Amino acid sequence: MRERLFTPGPTQIPERVQVAMSNPMVHHRGASFKQMFEEVVEDLRYFFQTSGDVLTLTSSGSGAMEACVVNLLCKNDKVLTVSGGKFGERWGEMCRAFGAETHTIDVTWGDAVPPEAIQEFLRAHPDARAVFLTHSETSTGVAADIKEIAAIVNEHSDAILVVDSITSAGVLPFKMDEWGIDVAVTGSQKGLMIPPGLAVVALSKRAWDRVESSDLPKFYFDLKKEKKAQLNSATAWTPAITLFMGLREALRMIREEGLETMWQTYARLAHATRQGALACGLELFARSPSDSLTAVTIPESIDGLKFTAHLRKEYGITVAGGQSQLKGRIFRIAHMGYYDALDMVAMAGALELTLRDFDWPFEHGAGVRAVQKVFMERE
Amino acid sequence: MRERLFTPGPTQIPERVQVAMSNPMVHHRGASFKQMFEEVVEDLRYFFQTSGDVLTLTSSGSGAMEACVVNLLCKNDKVLTVSGGKFGERWGEMCRAFGAETHTIDVTWGDAVPPEAIQEFLRAHPDARAVFLTHSETSTGVAADIKEIAAIVNEHSDAILVVDSITSAGVLPFKMDEWGIDVAVTGSQKGLMIPPGLAVVALSKRAWDRVESSDLPKFYFDLKKEKKAQLNSATAWTPAITLFMGLREALRMIREEGLETMWQTYARLAHATRQGALACGLELFARSPSDSLTAVTIPESIDGLKFTAHLRKEYGITVAGGQSQLKGRIFRIAHMGYYDALDMVAMAGALELTLRDFDWPFEHGAGVRAVQKVFMERE
Repeated sequence: MRERLFTPGPTQIPERVQVAMSNPMVHHRGASFKQMFEEVVEDLRYFFQTSGDVLTLTSSGSGAMEACVVNLLCKNDKVLTVSGGKFGERWGEMCRAFGAETHTIDVTWGDAVPPEAIQEFLRAHPDARAVFLTHSETSTGVAADIKEIAAIVNEHSDAILVVDSITSAGVLPFKMDEWGIDVAVTGSQKGLMIPPGLAVVALSKRAWDRVESSDLPKFYFDLKKEKKAQLNSATAWTPAITLFMGLREALRMIREEGLETMWQTYARLAHATRQGALACGLELFARSPSDSLTAVTIPESIDGLKFTAHLRKEYGITVAGGQSQLKGRIFRIAHMGYYDALDMVAMAGALELTLRDFDWPFEHGAGVRAVQKVFMERE
Repeated sequence: MRERLFTPGPTQIPERVQVAMSNPMVHHRGASFKQMFEEVVEDLRYFFQTSGDVLTLTSSGSGAMEACVVNLLCKNDKVLTVSGGKFGERWGEMCRAFGAETHTIDVTWGDAVPPEAIQEFLRAHPDARAVFLTHSETSTGVAADIKEIAAIVNEHSDAILVVDSITSAGVLPFKMDEWGIDVAVTGSQKGLMIPPGLAVVALSKRAWDRVESSDLPKFYFDLKKEKKAQLNSATAWTPAITLFMGLREALRMIREEGLETMWQTYARLAHATRQGALACGLELFARSPSDSLTAVTIPESIDGLKFTAHLRKEYGITVAGGQSQLKGRIFRIAHMGYYDALDMVAMAGALELTLRDFDWPFEHGAGVRAVQKVFMERE
């Protein structure tokens, strides 16, 4: 049986990227690495739509999140985080771990944070130094309206806006400079389509002023050290060299396709996936769904853990289950990264077969037809 | 021209490892990753010669060093570091960055730290909480007598001994439990023969007591979180999955060969390399040379930077130059990892050709002959 990965990170690795990563090892202080590094930095600027600094770190996305906290804040800085999913909560946990005065807006899991709630907080706390948000909340499949929130943060405060764009960069429309986002973070195994192990932090000029004055202890994630090294096309510490080889190739693919086209493609894949699930009589979990992944509620009559295990064992399809409070209650299908329309048709096929195996009542064929219909209409 | 890498990290990647890393991506919470993880942990215990906990981190070796500092210490703990090279200095910089009361023994670069100096410090400072050492100092090619030092630290103090074994683990004899080493750290691109991006921390029971009481802020490198996750064959954060695939294969190779055999092989490669350099009339930089890499002094009549560039451009051989105060003054040849006798014969050949190009007076053929003689005698 063929294995198919539909997890919201790691995502499928394009063959071109796989081949690129099979190249012979090079030294990270040599000319060929430097050349690769420079191409990657230029393409990452395009990827984030920024002319600012883009620093690559050898860590998971969480490492890059920590880099933001320890480089942008001073002891006891007042910050705002939003708790509406596991990754929003992670910002809060990190800010607290490093001693920031951390305020949190609680949002029901499955809902997006209302921009007005952020505006209200900033009015009440004009001394807030930073707002930490999640663009695409991977645990719930919810997208926040980052463009509107950025406008609010910029209009109503001196706070910097730090965005976890781990499952949004390259997938959802994201214009860092134009929208006034100060810091964006991503991981390698999402929209960048390479294996996990690299992370990226993009920073505005304004964010750099914060880095200069930050007094929190740091070493491995010291962005001043990284910037100094990376201005010379090297990294402060030995980088994950093979992943850089993959990253260069993936960014070339993204350039060739064009970001705007990719955003449209992902929107269509997401729309089709949602239509497929609805046509099988299932409900979507997210009230403001992200186009990176689709969270589907598992009917109460079905054992959620058995459901995802069955999908994997019988049909070779790996999706993600629910995390924390959503364990066994939802499953999550990724469509960010190296996926196309026919992958989604296949996914709907496996979903139907599994629902049939669990005796869920629905019109057999309706899910696949609904997915196919979206692609028929659009092209 | 064929490119040959002789840098002390990254080292050559074995073909078997390269193939293993080309396997399709798997999810890091799935059964196949768990199985791989368990095999890796078991083999890493063998690699470090420990029955204690072995935790894998997605970072460079420096990240794992930071993990030691922030997890083992409390604010203002008194610690000892040794500054006899760039990596010994790094322990000191890190300890200071996180607020430890850091004492340093200064050693001339090229010398090993005298065990008596450590004994003397511990007698004068019975309240010292930790000693941070470098087994194989990659910047100078010097090996410290870790076995003797461990005996001293254990006899004369309650301090824990934390060893950077980044370029020694798997290469130099290293018996963590038997010698009484509390913590050992390595990176993936050295004796483990895979690309950079993973690091490992091995900890004794005594070290864990320190982790439990540590009060320094941490998140990404929080070893309590990692231990909890890794006891369930998962990692706290998304790991570098392809590197795990490579690591499993590399550890299988190490098991097949046997650690004792590998230690002997590396000792012979190092001995041959040193003999080759000496036979060309060159001097060795390290007074207590490590068998992981050989640091050779570049004669004053030769421009050091041009020398290593020439070796690379004309003969495809990449060695490492000197770092910091040794820039242009030495070059460093790795023999840890995937190297054999014939690699060293080839290396000596390139070295001779380059020396000839720089008009260095020596008996042509003497270097290659000296290397070959070591292998002839021994087998």
